[in-house]
Amino acid sequence: MRDTLEALESGDISVAEAESILAGYATTAAGRFDADRERRRGIPEAVLAEGKTPGETATLATTALETTGRALVTRADPAVASAVRDAIADAAPDATVEYDERTNAVVAHAVDFDPPSCSATVAVVTAGTSDAPVAGEAALVAHEIGSAVALIEDVGVANLDRLLDQVGRIREADVVVVAAGREGALPTVVAGLVDAPVIALPVSTGYGVGGDGVAALEGALQSCTVLSTVNVDAGFVAGAQAGLIARAIDGH
Amino acid sequence: MRDTLEALESGDISVAEAESILAGYATTAAGRFDADRERRRGIPEAVLAEGKTPGETATLATTALETTGRALVTRADPAVASAVRDAIADAAPDATVEYDERTNAVVAHAVDFDPPSCSATVAVVTAGTSDAPVAGEAALVAHEIGSAVALIEDVGVANLDRLLDQVGRIREADVVVVAAGREGALPTVVAGLVDAPVIALPVSTGYGVGGDGVAALEGALQSCTVLSTVNVDAGFVAGAQAGLIARAIDGH
Amino acid sequence: MRDTLEALESGDISVAEAESILAGYATTAAGRFDADRERRRGIPEAVLAEGKTPGETATLATTALETTGRALVTRADPAVASAVRDAIADAAPDATVEYDERTNAVVAHAVDFDPPSCSATVAVVTAGTSDAPVAGEAALVAHEIGSAVALIEDVGVANLDRLLDQVGRIREADVVVVAAGREGALPTVVAGLVDAPVIALPVSTGYGVGGDGVAALEGALQSCTVLSTVNVDAGFVAGAQAGLIARAIDGH
Amino acid sequence: MRDTLEALESGDISVAEAESILAGYATTAAGRFDADRERRRGIPEAVLAEGKTPGETATLATTALETTGRALVTRADPAVASAVRDAIADAAPDATVEYDERTNAVVAHAVDFDPPSCSATVAVVTAGTSDAPVAGEAALVAHEIGSAVALIEDVGVANLDRLLDQVGRIREADVVVVAAGREGALPTVVAGLVDAPVIALPVSTGYGVGGDGVAALEGALQSCTVLSTVNVDAGFVAGAQAGLIARAIDGH
Amino acid sequence: MRDTLEALESGDISVAEAESILAGYATTAAGRFDADRERRRGIPEAVLAEGKTPGETATLATTALETTGRALVTRADPAVASAVRDAIADAAPDATVEYDERTNAVVAHAVDFDPPSCSATVAVVTAGTSDAPVAGEAALVAHEIGSAVALIEDVGVANLDRLLDQVGRIREADVVVVAAGREGALPTVVAGLVDAPVIALPVSTGYGVGGDGVAALEGALQSCTVLSTVNVDAGFVAGAQAGLIARAIDGH
Amino acid sequence: MRDTLEALESGDISVAEAESILAGYATTAAGRFDADRERRRGIPEAVLAEGKTPGETATLATTALETTGRALVTRADPAVASAVRDAIADAAPDATVEYDERTNAVVAHAVDFDPPSCSATVAVVTAGTSDAPVAGEAALVAHEIGSAVALIEDVGVANLDRLLDQVGRIREADVVVVAAGREGALPTVVAGLVDAPVIALPVSTGYGVGGDGVAALEGALQSCTVLSTVNVDAGFVAGAQAGLIARAIDGH
Amino acid sequence: MRDTLEALESGDISVAEAESILAGYATTAAGRFDADRERRRGIPEAVLAEGKTPGETATLATTALETTGRALVTRADPAVASAVRDAIADAAPDATVEYDERTNAVVAHAVDFDPPSCSATVAVVTAGTSDAPVAGEAALVAHEIGSAVALIEDVGVANLDRLLDQVGRIREADVVVVAAGREGALPTVVAGLVDAPVIALPVSTGYGVGGDGVAALEGALQSCTVLSTVNVDAGFVAGAQAGLIARAIDGH
Amino acid sequence: MRDTLEALESGDISVAEAESILAGYATTAAGRFDADRERRRGIPEAVLAEGKTPGETATLATTALETTGRALVTRADPAVASAVRDAIADAAPDATVEYDERTNAVVAHAVDFDPPSCSATVAVVTAGTSDAPVAGEAALVAHEIGSAVALIEDVGVANLDRLLDQVGRIREADVVVVAAGREGALPTVVAGLVDAPVIALPVSTGYGVGGDGVAALEGALQSCTVLSTVNVDAGFVAGAQAGLIARAIDGH
Repeated sequence: MRDTLEALESGDISVAEAESILAGYATTAAGRFDADRERRRGIPEAVLAEGKTPGETATLATTALETTGRALVTRADPAVASAVRDAIADAAPDATVEYDERTNAVVAHAVDFDPPSCSATVAVVTAGTSDAPVAGEAALVAHEIGSAVALIEDVGVANLDRLLDQVGRIREADVVVVAAGREGALPTVVAGLVDAPVIALPVSTGYGVGGDGVAALEGALQSCTVLSTVNVDAGFVAGAQAGLIARAIDGH
Repeated sequence: MRDTLEALESGDISVAEAESILAGYATTAAGRFDADRERRRGIPEAVLAEGKTPGETATLATTALETTGRALVTRADPAVASAVRDAIADAAPDATVEYDERTNAVVAHAVDFDPPSCSATVAVVTAGTSDAPVAGEAALVAHEIGSAVALIEDVGVANLDRLLDQVGRIREADVVVVAAGREGALPTVVAGLVDAPVIALPVSTGYGVGGDGVAALEGALQSCTVLSTVNVDAGFVAGAQAGLIARAIDGH
Repeated sequence: MRDTLEALESGDISVAEAESILAGYATTAAGRFDADRERRRGIPEAVLAEGKTPGETATLATTALETTGRALVTRADPAVASAVRDAIADAAPDATVEYDERTNAVVAHAVDFDPPSCSATVAVVTAGTSDAPVAGEAALVAHEIGSAVALIEDVGVANLDRLLDQVGRIREADVVVVAAGREGALPTVVAGLVDAPVIALPVSTGYGVGGDGVAALEGALQSCTVLSTVNVDAGFVAGAQAGLIARAIDGH
Repeated sequence: MRDTLEALESGDISVAEAESILAGYATTAAGRFDADRERRRGIPEAVLAEGKTPGETATLATTALETTGRALVTRADPAVASAVRDAIADAAPDATVEYDERTNAVVAHAVDFDPPSCSATVAVVTAGTSDAPVAGEAALVAHEIGSAVALIEDVGVANLDRLLDQVGRIREADVVVVAAGREGALPTVVAGLVDAPVIALPVSTGYGVGGDGVAALEGALQSCTVLSTVNVDAGFVAGAQAGLIARAIDGH
Repeated sequence: MRDTLEALESGDISVAEAESILAGYATTAAGRFDADRERRRGIPEAVLAEGKTPGETATLATTALETTGRALVTRADPAVASAVRDAIADAAPDATVEYDERTNAVVAHAVDFDPPSCSATVAVVTAGTSDAPVAGEAALVAHEIGSAVALIEDVGVANLDRLLDQVGRIREADVVVVAAGREGALPTVVAGLVDAPVIALPVSTGYGVGGDGVAALEGALQSCTVLSTVNVDAGFVAGAQAGLIARAIDGH
Repeated sequence: MRDTLEALESGDISVAEAESILAGYATTAAGRFDADRERRRGIPEAVLAEGKTPGETATLATTALETTGRALVTRADPAVASAVRDAIADAAPDATVEYDERTNAVVAHAVDFDPPSCSATVAVVTAGTSDAPVAGEAALVAHEIGSAVALIEDVGVANLDRLLDQVGRIREADVVVVAAGREGALPTVVAGLVDAPVIALPVSTGYGVGGDGVAALEGALQSCTVLSTVNVDAGFVAGAQAGLIARAIDGH
Repeated sequence: MRDTLEALESGDISVAEAESILAGYATTAAGRFDADRERRRGIPEAVLAEGKTPGETATLATTALETTGRALVTRADPAVASAVRDAIADAAPDATVEYDERTNAVVAHAVDFDPPSCSATVAVVTAGTSDAPVAGEAALVAHEIGSAVALIEDVGVANLDRLLDQVGRIREADVVVVAAGREGALPTVVAGLVDAPVIALPVSTGYGVGGDGVAALEGALQSCTVLSTVNVDAGFVAGAQAGLIARAIDGH
Repeated sequence: MRDTLEALESGDISVAEAESILAGYATTAAGRFDADRERRRGIPEAVLAEGKTPGETATLATTALETTGRALVTRADPAVASAVRDAIADAAPDATVEYDERTNAVVAHAVDFDPPSCSATVAVVTAGTSDAPVAGEAALVAHEIGSAVALIEDVGVANLDRLLDQVGRIREADVVVVAAGREGALPTVVAGLVDAPVIALPVSTGYGVGGDGVAALEGALQSCTVLSTVNVDAGFVAGAQAGLIARAIDGH
């Protein structure tokens, strides 16, 4: 503890960093930020923009950057992304900030951020074009955790040839995330073809009864093969769980 | 009408037959039997035993036999089947009566019943062992309508090899019924492989959320291919709809 | 295969067409297009605009046109329709493009497209004015598959006279699609009157409990007659399934 | 009040009757019995046997008989019916007690009970054989309220001829209760044909999604005609509401 | 029939009126209008604007006015109301047109329209301020059918004094509609206090689980008293059913 | 800690008691028993018999008795109650054991158990006879926590007189639990009449849609007054929460 | 009563105040206001702006201010808040009016309003930043009832250290409200750590299946500890119930 | 292939083994057994006894034993277990057969079966006694896949001390399965404390709304930490997924 306090006194670290080290979290105007998550769990704490004001989101993002060297914001529409970018430009002008409109995610790295890396590979497989945003969120998170990520798109079961052509690539991965909406048959079919762990990522496509991803989620829960699942559109969770498994395989 | 009345007077037909011809149904102690259905729709009227007493079921079955030459009882447990058999033995000692315990169906034919026939083929495909009773009901009904029926069992997608080995046989059929429970991926995968009309038949296997066939039904409704569906465990409806299509193909 | 490659080398076909012929699909910036569907299943692959960006939709539509001679886009609002029209104007200036605002569908035909035809008739029946857009989608697809289509509107059961006046016309069809929202009684009543296969098409009218087409769908699933159903508002699926059956009846 | 107390003192009425007159209910070992309901609402208070022990049911039934001259017990299985019969035999040996096994209802009348009567007619219409028990409960209650009751059975819409043959009889009634399970189309079709108030009585037949009467209830709620509904299997409520309307028409 | 044709030939009635008289409905560009409903059922056919375009709604409204002397449009936002008003101004400049913004209903009467009248009274009772629009729709329809209508507002059970103060007025009515959202306790409490038939009208207030009127509807279905119900927000149906009962009481 | 260890060594306390004091729980063959709950929360730990074998239940009950001087088992059918009674007879022959068949609860007290007491009063109010078992569980638990309990039964809103007669007694209580099934209007009506905190206890009576206590729970959640609720049939939780509030009022 | 009438005659009180005193409510153009609630229940009547027009809300707020010295409006967006502020500025220029945009609540106090006070403390605990608005509503209401309120934010269970650091503060409170969305584990964990009554306040965060606060509410209902709950986002109800308990503890 | 055929001819392997090697499955009277699953996926194919007759289950179990050296039957009641034991005694008298009544699983090993082994550890954590059967199924399957399994029971969050005492042991595992019913808070709390991948296993305890494991599953889907889940009571799937991950970590 003394080291931390001395570093604070000497200005090497900020109050927020010191609080994060000592208490496991940093208290901000927008809430207590769980800065300790990465150390404790091996995955970055992300800021879910939904349900927060742009200001709260930006405050939490700058705290994340300050205390962990990285900020990850999900479900950020362009206005939120802009607020985050502005706040970081103020607080940490040297940091890099990237925003992906299709995925709605912001990633910022401090200038001295040292990204983790891991030799295990995560495959992110999609059934169709509409699955791209959610699958992209999963891929981004797995990448941030350090995994190599292979994106294999548009292999839905309506045309089995598309899938069979790609099975070889899917089999090369150590962990597989399969994103699909509508009836969600793809995770089950993929899980029958590979020996890596498969995580289903239901997507909120579809309409009518069973729409909004419900049929896809229930299909994952009822799968006659072995797989586990995350909630509808939970790209962050799927990518983080895959990244955790990849890290464990890699020996972290 | 005069012919019918004369036939009744001369004892060639019974009161129930006469009423069926003239009114389109026969009034019995257990309800009005829709004797006209076969003529009007091309499919036999079946007696659903659930929700009726064994006595009511037996009364309707004998009326069916008397007015259409055939009786078809579904969801009959052994006690009901026995009541039906006894009632038919009394009313029409020459009729044949068969009961299938796995399918829970009773089929009786009058001695002079002339079964319809149709050159088109219905394939009934199942994902696994638990789908057999419901698929059997569908096969039985399609057979009674006159279709040739091909039963192709246990080709669930957890092991694609089983399915790919049988695709040739499925493609030979004119109409395809695909019975599956759990996540119900099989109807979608089959419908992506054949050009015949596919009817999904969800089966009430599975447990937990989406169990009792709900996920399988929602999967059919959300299918990213083209198919239509019937309700969970509605083997009779799937088989009859397939039989109707087969008859139409055959030129009836 | 050599023929295809030679045609490509000589410029007779495009890369996308060659890939479609050899691989069964065409890889585009917006996903793999299942160009093979029509050959494999006898029905055109449609682009569902919902969940895709206008750009992705337009890319897939032009690929469809290029590889199959036809593009069919459903659930396209005017902005999407406009993007599709512009993209096709660029890529294939000779193609015809039609957009129906009530149905929200775009249909494009290449200048040398040879539409299929089929002598069997599909009747599309509606209960009321609000069912028109969904029923229109079904009619359009059945027409594109080659069927003759009879549209019989506003015969809901609240006034049986309207229906009984049209029964003769409905009975002339080889396959019947019945679109209805609210309580969805019409498919059941129609299926009791005709001997052609009936496909229920529930429509998302109605409010309160059972609204959004849920009661209509459950009514189709529970029907005391024989019919199969598609999901709520699934006009494309109903029309395609009817078209498939019509083709089978016609001997394709 | 003095009259009541004098009648009690002189033994002309029992403590329970006196309490009913003064307080509006009678306190028993099994709960407070709403003896005043008939006077206040014009309908007899019935004892719903479900959720009560046979002893509690019997106690409430004898109190009903003592304070109102009549007892009506619904959803009574044979064991409960027997307990009620025994308790009444002890408490009021002269009373008549009738039990209907199909309807599961017990009706008892004190020897001096003077049944109400009403010149308006209630039609109870059913779709099929399985609707009989629930419809029977409705008919019994309407009859106890004093209405003339016409039972018109088995006119489900799968065969419209059955219904059209009986429309004349249905139109003669002042109020119509329509019992139907499965897809529940009959209440809507009947309500389109008559000008009397129609009350839908959904029945818990059917299986799979929308089963247990849910589709039938939602169909009534979504009906494109004008009707009101009661809950699934609520025969007592439908019959009592119809009886109340009949009484109002009759000028009570 | 001859009379009708002669009237048409002589210009006394329009083609639509003639078709209505002969066929029971009028065929318009926006659908078949059930002009016969009032004669057949004693209630005016209303045009539900939801799910129709403003143009379709206006066409149906002018047809209603032309064939029945009256038009009733529900769920009309100001833009739809304006389209209806303009269309009627063109087609029938002498007609009166009224629009109520809170109820979202348009009522138009032809200059020679002779409104029905009925001596029985309908009470429309509400629990709170938010129930006013739906209750207003019910009151308007009952009034159009000819009933006297008493509106008794804001007597929710959270303060029983408000209700007990008004019980006398409610008891004077021949039929009672009770509109309530949230937990929907009011219909049950009112039905325990009066002997007229009570119709529950659940309103889509409330949030969270059981919100949107679901708890209120389920409360009506589960009521421990006797009442029937209509769907959530179905003011038209409740008012029409109450009007039908009032007419029957009045001896129509 | 030394005291505890010395008491264990000297045989004054058992191993289980010592473990409870030191670790906060006792490890048994049937699971870790939370012996510390009463000290920590002021409410006894109860053993829910559902989902456990009779042997497991009996083991946990004897551990409860040994470590806290009291055992409380809920949802115990007679066979489980008997197993508990036998196990306690073996382990603690001097303890008192009582079983209430209507409530399905077992209560055992060690010979030297000193029951808590509290001067605040809990009223347990019920709507009807069927609510008795669940209300009884609530009353029993509140009593075990030390509260005075007033049981006020059968005051459902179908007959308001019953309730208004008892309002005075309900107003005397410091905390009120209101048990009701069906539409569950009673908690709302009671909460409008008293100023003590009200806890709704929905009961699983009722059938059809909203049955099994669902409507009653949703009614509590949507109540237009102020109250909190527990789950359907959660008599233990309602009684314990009421007891906790009573203790707080009493100054514990 | 005479006093009230004399005060009215002399102008000391308004008609609305007089009516409130005599009838228990005040009749306004926007409904009957339950002015008596505070006296009867000890909690202020709040105006829920949802489902009312701005004008109705403002009318009810000014009536509240006039008859009880205070107005509390919840779920007021800025436009509604502005309408309320303007109306109060007209009717009671001396009153204070405050609006909190995050909580969407308006509080107005008459110049001579004497706020209640209570020595018991209510802790309002939140899991994360998104719970702030709903928790704020609860805190505001508890404060208005007179309780001391401690707000303890952002102690969700994903990082137990945050919670364990604050347990001491939570244990100091007499009543605890715990607001949490997503999986809603926090109320259960807190209730396992304190001996004060705990009220769960589920928040409508979360997406996919179980989203919109449903999982959080179900988690509260299923909690393995003792707590009661209010509906999703029902901050007013949770705060008022906590305030009622605090008042009872304080000896009111 | 020649090797296989020669082995068959020489009697070294059976027809079923030969078919399994060549086709990937073995055709039996009870269905096609996926003998290839272990090779393809690294997990044994289990026979789910639910929905199959005892005879079908026994046939599939003996085929499993014959073709893979091992049989694993889940959800087997004693009668099914007995049928399996008898069938194996006939077909492979030297095999070992074990049945666990609490877990309802049968495991049989051929005499020469060589069990896989893996150095990674799976922790199976439970919240309470009722979770034991489902957790036991997970533990058994993980063990059969070769993992070391640590069972850590009864650490539900109602008493955090129980959990904190065991955190060290949980942190030693490479993969963690957390079984919990009721509100299912434990998986979320555990996932906040460890850095291994966590798989939630919801258990069907609990009653009322959210019962049967629904709240526990939704809690896992909504978890504010990172975890994936399987369906309610899917012990086999959770154990197999954990075993797959353990194998991947171990370098298979």
